[in-house]
Amino acid sequence: MTHPAARPTKVTPLSGFPEYLPEQRIVEQHFIDVIRSTFELHGFPSIETRAVEPVERLLGKGGDADKEIYGIHRLADDEGGAAGGREGQLGLHFDLTVPFARYVVENAGRLNFPFRRHQIQKVWRGERPQEGRYREFTQCDIDVVDAGELAPHFEAEMPLVMAEIFAKLPIPQMIIQVNNRKIPEGFYRGLGIDDVAGTLRIVDKLDKIGPDKVAALLVEAGRTTEQAQACLDLAAIRTEDTTFVDRVRALGVENPVLDEGLAALAAVIETGAAAAPGAMVADLRIARGLDYYTGTVYETQLVGYESWGSFCSGGRYDELATDGKTTYPGVGISIGLSRLLGLLLGKGLVGATRKSPSAVLVAVTDEGSRPRSVAVATALRARGIPCEVAPAAAKFGKQIRFAERRGIPHVWFPGARDSGGDQVKDIRSGEQVDAAAESWTCPVEDLQPRVVALGE
Amino acid sequence: MTHPAARPTKVTPLSGFPEYLPEQRIVEQHFIDVIRSTFELHGFPSIETRAVEPVERLLGKGGDADKEIYGIHRLADDEGGAAGGREGQLGLHFDLTVPFARYVVENAGRLNFPFRRHQIQKVWRGERPQEGRYREFTQCDIDVVDAGELAPHFEAEMPLVMAEIFAKLPIPQMIIQVNNRKIPEGFYRGLGIDDVAGTLRIVDKLDKIGPDKVAALLVEAGRTTEQAQACLDLAAIRTEDTTFVDRVRALGVENPVLDEGLAALAAVIETGAAAAPGAMVADLRIARGLDYYTGTVYETQLVGYESWGSFCSGGRYDELATDGKTTYPGVGISIGLSRLLGLLLGKGLVGATRKSPSAVLVAVTDEGSRPRSVAVATALRARGIPCEVAPAAAKFGKQIRFAERRGIPHVWFPGARDSGGDQVKDIRSGEQVDAAAESWTCPVEDLQPRVVALGE
Repeated sequence: MTHPAARPTKVTPLSGFPEYLPEQRIVEQHFIDVIRSTFELHGFPSIETRAVEPVERLLGKGGDADKEIYGIHRLADDEGGAAGGREGQLGLHFDLTVPFARYVVENAGRLNFPFRRHQIQKVWRGERPQEGRYREFTQCDIDVVDAGELAPHFEAEMPLVMAEIFAKLPIPQMIIQVNNRKIPEGFYRGLGIDDVAGTLRIVDKLDKIGPDKVAALLVEAGRTTEQAQACLDLAAIRTEDTTFVDRVRALGVENPVLDEGLAALAAVIETGAAAAPGAMVADLRIARGLDYYTGTVYETQLVGYESWGSFCSGGRYDELATDGKTTYPGVGISIGLSRLLGLLLGKGLVGATRKSPSAVLVAVTDEGSRPRSVAVATALRARGIPCEVAPAAAKFGKQIRFAERRGIPHVWFPGARDSGGDQVKDIRSGEQVDAAAESWTCPVEDLQPRVVALGE
Repeated sequence: MTHPAARPTKVTPLSGFPEYLPEQRIVEQHFIDVIRSTFELHGFPSIETRAVEPVERLLGKGGDADKEIYGIHRLADDEGGAAGGREGQLGLHFDLTVPFARYVVENAGRLNFPFRRHQIQKVWRGERPQEGRYREFTQCDIDVVDAGELAPHFEAEMPLVMAEIFAKLPIPQMIIQVNNRKIPEGFYRGLGIDDVAGTLRIVDKLDKIGPDKVAALLVEAGRTTEQAQACLDLAAIRTEDTTFVDRVRALGVENPVLDEGLAALAAVIETGAAAAPGAMVADLRIARGLDYYTGTVYETQLVGYESWGSFCSGGRYDELATDGKTTYPGVGISIGLSRLLGLLLGKGLVGATRKSPSAVLVAVTDEGSRPRSVAVATALRARGIPCEVAPAAAKFGKQIRFAERRGIPHVWFPGARDSGGDQVKDIRSGEQVDAAAESWTCPVEDLQPRVVALGE
């Protein structure tokens, strides 16, 4: 009759699978609550997709993605030896975009287009864990997809939602960097460069290796010195308003795709400047590693922590999914919540005011009067005040220390008055006052643990 | 530059991995919100554990559990052939208790005992899917664990939390059936039966095969006819108050463990009758399949849907975990949310009042005036009113139909008045009134989608 988990086993954390203590989880929950409520304020309903997809679909992403995928198998099937090939095999999703694309096609007849949704879920990648990279992590996505055509104004809407979230969170300043893939594409073509993708891939290394090495690589790849310099000049343009247009024009390159890109990016930046001043910049070096973006692309830096990479990224894709007849273009953006919390919690930049949801600990005078303490707790909860009853009728000093250790701000003493009435003590100030469970007002700032910015 | 997910692929649902449409997900979110907020009202902070545990730990549960476990493996490792043995192998958790036990031992030095937590997460089992059974499903657990000893009053607290949740949800009546393992154990021993576990296992089949077959099996297993009848008499006792004690006494069996069990169950039922009248019954046939429970056990029936099995179960275990020095006894209870929603959504017993979080659709008169519509939406959101801007400056009739299809109750028309002021229409009543985004009051019942009981 022993729980077999009770066998003492060596317990060690798994690298890349972060877990939080309750007080850290309160921070995570607060972030998720703010993210979800803001998504909903903007009309994005939630969906969740199953954790698994057919491996074939996950591999559709191509490249070296298959190195990062976890397959799953029933242990009971292990007896039969290794699974023979990937047919019918399932794997854990490594992002929320591939499952969303499948969900849209699967449910197209039951969704209303343009369809907007948010999705906050864990994803898994079998990569080597490192700073800001995990094997299990939480992504928070919004996307809008339409059937056939997607209006460009959605590209301006996405970063506004994120800017609103960042403004509500206790974090350093976030800067959303926006570009449009058509700008480098048109610019490169205007320069006479045919290998747009190859050139983009090299320019994308700017942050890592610097302009000199990028120029050398471009020349190595067949670009002229002048072309390489023009590519670097373009990538160096970063403006908070639409003056980037004139600065690109000043480089003297002409191309109709470039014109389209400049107009589209100007529209996004104008909308941003009007609705969320200071939250966005046009940054013409942003390319995004993934090659399926076709228009606007987003990355986001936390000011002062640029080396951590992007905390919020996305872009427009012309073909999120297709069922063979209809194609679904979309635009989306995603917060890398685990990376953000890894930084903020790891560096002690954010914390919760207490470990427990309880605002009140109801003391117990003796075990015989526990029902009275339970009745107090029931009355407080009926009025929305989170509370718990002391675990034992210990000395009051010990009961107060129980509350202190959890950060519970108030301790309730049933029958503390000579008249038999109750009292409640704010254990931070030591002030103890008469109170009745049916009428006592808990200070609003004490009702829930609060999540606050802390000094580094 | 094509998103490879765009390759048309046949898309079919995976059996046992349910997914919801947005309007169903609103129901699920409402249930989770009520569950979480009630857990927090009772002072249970949240934790989440990683999705994976070492397979060795998962197998610790013994029995045929390994048939149900999904192992995970990096696809990139497949090239090396089948994994050689289970050492270091990871699997998806199949419940939240085994991971919680590991979490307690791993973090014991950083937790305050008695430690209470709630945990709402997905779990995975590779079983054959059937009515109410899934391969991926969501569990909502609360547990209290202590180091060394756990006070018995926690056994009375658990079902009260659940009763409060059930009372807040739009569902048929839930009855929490409570028993104490010591009652059958002491009773069987008092009858002279040594094989307590074997007898319990047979009696546990009562709901499935009925009393006659149970009696036959008991006799087959070596019990006398009189013993078998006494076991059935005990299992037939079900009372809403503590009269079960007298009814057990009337069976004339004496045993000190039986006395302990009766006193403990009476305490739980008394507390329940005081705090949540009608929510609990003492039901002496409840045993719980898992054999690690040592005291109180809980199961829960939805009245009218008894054949679906238990929607909320748990109990007390004397050894949740141990690190070799300290043992951690605990008590816990868990809602099987996916089973509950599978029933309620499958039978159409519950639904959301709309598909979209938006309370307002802001119409767009022409694309040139879209910024004005965006400004209206920004002003409404700043006052907590969820809204979205129409996707295209189509005819107003078409924009209203866009809102109708999503159940968005209000459509806002910027500049609809001759004076240039705005108007808003309740598209259910057709009433259209003057309004300003900075002051219009959205009816409270329209702010969020509501989740309501529906007729069958």
